[in-house]
Amino acid sequence: MNYKMMGRLNAMIFGALCGFMLPSFILCLCDKDGQAALAFGISIALTGVLALILAILCRGASVKFYAREGLICVGICWLGMSLLGALPFRLSGCFDSYIDALFEIASGFSTTGASVLSDVECLPRGILFWRSFSHWVGGMGVLIFLLAIVPISGKNQGFTLHLMRAESPGPDVGKLVPKMRSTAAILYICYLVLTVLNVVFLLIGGMSFFEALCTAFGTAGTGGFGLKNDSIGGYSPYIQVVTTVFMLLFGVNFSCYFLIAFGKFRAVLKDEELRAYGIIVLGSTLAIALRNLFGAGAVYGTFGESLRHAAFQVGSIMTTTGFSTADFDLWPTFSKAILALLMLIGASAGSTGGGFKVSRFLLILKGARRNLSRVLHPDRVKSIRLCGKPVDEKVLSNTNGYLAAYLAILIVSFLIVSFDRAVSDMTTSMTACIACFNNIGPGFSGVGPTRNFGDFSVVSKLVLIFDMLAGRLEIFPMLVLLSPAAWRRA
Amino acid sequence: MNYKMMGRLNAMIFGALCGFMLPSFILCLCDKDGQAALAFGISIALTGVLALILAILCRGASVKFYAREGLICVGICWLGMSLLGALPFRLSGCFDSYIDALFEIASGFSTTGASVLSDVECLPRGILFWRSFSHWVGGMGVLIFLLAIVPISGKNQGFTLHLMRAESPGPDVGKLVPKMRSTAAILYICYLVLTVLNVVFLLIGGMSFFEALCTAFGTAGTGGFGLKNDSIGGYSPYIQVVTTVFMLLFGVNFSCYFLIAFGKFRAVLKDEELRAYGIIVLGSTLAIALRNLFGAGAVYGTFGESLRHAAFQVGSIMTTTGFSTADFDLWPTFSKAILALLMLIGASAGSTGGGFKVSRFLLILKGARRNLSRVLHPDRVKSIRLCGKPVDEKVLSNTNGYLAAYLAILIVSFLIVSFDRAVSDMTTSMTACIACFNNIGPGFSGVGPTRNFGDFSVVSKLVLIFDMLAGRLEIFPMLVLLSPAAWRRA
Repeated sequence: MNYKMMGRLNAMIFGALCGFMLPSFILCLCDKDGQAALAFGISIALTGVLALILAILCRGASVKFYAREGLICVGICWLGMSLLGALPFRLSGCFDSYIDALFEIASGFSTTGASVLSDVECLPRGILFWRSFSHWVGGMGVLIFLLAIVPISGKNQGFTLHLMRAESPGPDVGKLVPKMRSTAAILYICYLVLTVLNVVFLLIGGMSFFEALCTAFGTAGTGGFGLKNDSIGGYSPYIQVVTTVFMLLFGVNFSCYFLIAFGKFRAVLKDEELRAYGIIVLGSTLAIALRNLFGAGAVYGTFGESLRHAAFQVGSIMTTTGFSTADFDLWPTFSKAILALLMLIGASAGSTGGGFKVSRFLLILKGARRNLSRVLHPDRVKSIRLCGKPVDEKVLSNTNGYLAAYLAILIVSFLIVSFDRAVSDMTTSMTACIACFNNIGPGFSGVGPTRNFGDFSVVSKLVLIFDMLAGRLEIFPMLVLLSPAAWRRA
Repeated sequence: MNYKMMGRLNAMIFGALCGFMLPSFILCLCDKDGQAALAFGISIALTGVLALILAILCRGASVKFYAREGLICVGICWLGMSLLGALPFRLSGCFDSYIDALFEIASGFSTTGASVLSDVECLPRGILFWRSFSHWVGGMGVLIFLLAIVPISGKNQGFTLHLMRAESPGPDVGKLVPKMRSTAAILYICYLVLTVLNVVFLLIGGMSFFEALCTAFGTAGTGGFGLKNDSIGGYSPYIQVVTTVFMLLFGVNFSCYFLIAFGKFRAVLKDEELRAYGIIVLGSTLAIALRNLFGAGAVYGTFGESLRHAAFQVGSIMTTTGFSTADFDLWPTFSKAILALLMLIGASAGSTGGGFKVSRFLLILKGARRNLSRVLHPDRVKSIRLCGKPVDEKVLSNTNGYLAAYLAILIVSFLIVSFDRAVSDMTTSMTACIACFNNIGPGFSGVGPTRNFGDFSVVSKLVLIFDMLAGRLEIFPMLVLLSPAAWRRA
């Protein structure tokens, strides 16, 4: 195991973390908020010292790096980042315990948006900024950020690939350009441009710069932390529509934007995942809008209003953002059932959104269809195609393995959280796990959009923290940390 | 498509159905219940005439038969059997509509045990007998029964194999002996012997012969229709324990009994599915017994009582029988969570129980573990082993495809049933689908053990009827009936 290299990467991550906390620190100073400023100051100093010690201890590390080490390294980096990033929350006194602070920052970095707080409007601006900014940092991935700016690996492409594979969402990392570093840079530029556009549109809607920035961070990272207790519900319909559109844009595979930038529109239109994503969003929105308008338990008076809320909630849940404009826990069962299914599908691979991912969902469905045709015609050989290209059997087998691991983690978490006294029904424990594991934020019943995770026990919170990070890193980087086989000498 | 052969098989099935209805008819005559006797008389006459017409029309069919035709044939046979078997229910006036009667008999043949009735104690004995006997008929499979007694296929082993594959539960049909017909006969003998033993033990507990027979039918088929409104709750602890043990026995792969009969005890002990089955049952029972005894919301006073009810419900749910001795919907969330998971796992392959099956569950778990090790060591090649033997990649891929089809059917059913006005929450619609699709019977909330399926709309009932039959026949025989590709000329 290349511990030195892992230490060096951690040192870099912690160094970057100092930089990430700086804006919040400055904001607190500007606001003359002494306690919060002190909290950030101490946190930055501690993190900086730790980074320095690690950097000195791990000088001269070799860049020889295997897949296994890439996974473990990413897992440890994210865990370390969360442990240190939680410090300002606790030190500022805004959170009652360190576990609560850790839950909140893990929820931030993993772009979940699940909170332990019932009232966020009383928080200092520096703390609010750090909550929202953590979404933006976590959305694209810190290591990808580092790869984009730091020439760390020299000529070792495998090293970069292993790290990026471990941190990027989706069944397979497509290299956009031959060099991984350039790919990382392109992704970050897309991310930055879209975020700036989002801020501009929000400013036009009359938001203050601070509000627009924080809301855009939450949208871009598909996170969901907001500045208001009623999330986006209190803002104007214009802001709600803008947020709906940008949530959906950040749930698209970023390689599509890369293709658009180079004028390859036809390739984008042929993208099967994008099409499925669009169809699911449109279909679900329409179905919910109509159900919420007519029949028993109808909640809206006009089609326009019903459509706006349906589109917002579908976009928010499908892209795993977690903002809300309505308490969808009070909607008719059919509408809730659709949202529950969207929770499980999640956003596109290669987007900032979480969940199982649309492309995996497509692969699994195609596998089922092939199985049916195999049962009918046992002697025919048929390969599965995605976007016109045959899919490698290994990718398919890995996707199935991923589904199994996904279900296994969900089941174990569900059982542990069900043991919690604060959990009154199975819907609460099940959707708490789904909402955290898929990085959504709100669930149903006891964790509905108007509720929070504050009452859960410490054990439940630890499980959910694991779920959030495991969900963001696509299971394996967190799972290997628990696997004895991973630590054994190869 | 070999329509003639399919017609001939249907004629045989209908002929057998006449025979199956005969005991109920005689019972009605003995009880001097005119209306019920008339209902059975008309049904038998109608079914007999239909069988005769089909037999005459389909004389001289060739025995050339493909996998596809085996599937379609089994699907049609079960559908036809349900359509005709529902007649006595409706004609006797005990059911308000034909759909209700169809739901009840589909629930019977598929060994689900979900009822539309709130009061069963007022039913005539003939009707009660038909309800329970349908479990026994459906438990082992009607075609297997025919294969065991009728020399239909001559020397064509493929024909028999295709039919048996389509009707038998589990990922792969093990041939116990070289001849399929003998295998079928052995399975039926095991089934018969165990049922007789069950009846004897129930008689010792003081049940009347009628009660013992009906209860044993429900247990043997892992069905769940009972004679009392409170299922097994009103009977003595002895009866409850006997039923627990026999439910668990009928949830074991019958090939184990075959091995035991020939003294191959070591092979039985090495059976990985049996071990997993035992561990899951013991672990769940203990966890629920302890949870129900201690802590907030404890429901029992002594460990013995708590253990007895826990074991009964675990056995009933895991083997997909669906009897109950307690309203487990009122148990603590943790206990309910365990039962909910057991609902999804189901019984052993090759048993009379339904569900996803323990062996498939094991294969999926092993697939997940292999995927983790593949992520850690991409260059290592590792095959999955079950009971010490390497598993064919095709079986694994088919199991994954089965999981996908299983989830897809569950999701679509869930959406349709959620649209029902009678459904007040997602737990009701979700567990109604799970309980029917896995042939269990009761679910949670609106379909809990003290509730019934009577209030559902016609659409929901049709979906659930499809689910029950699809669950019993392991999806594909019912799915191909809806698949245009299956009907196309090969």
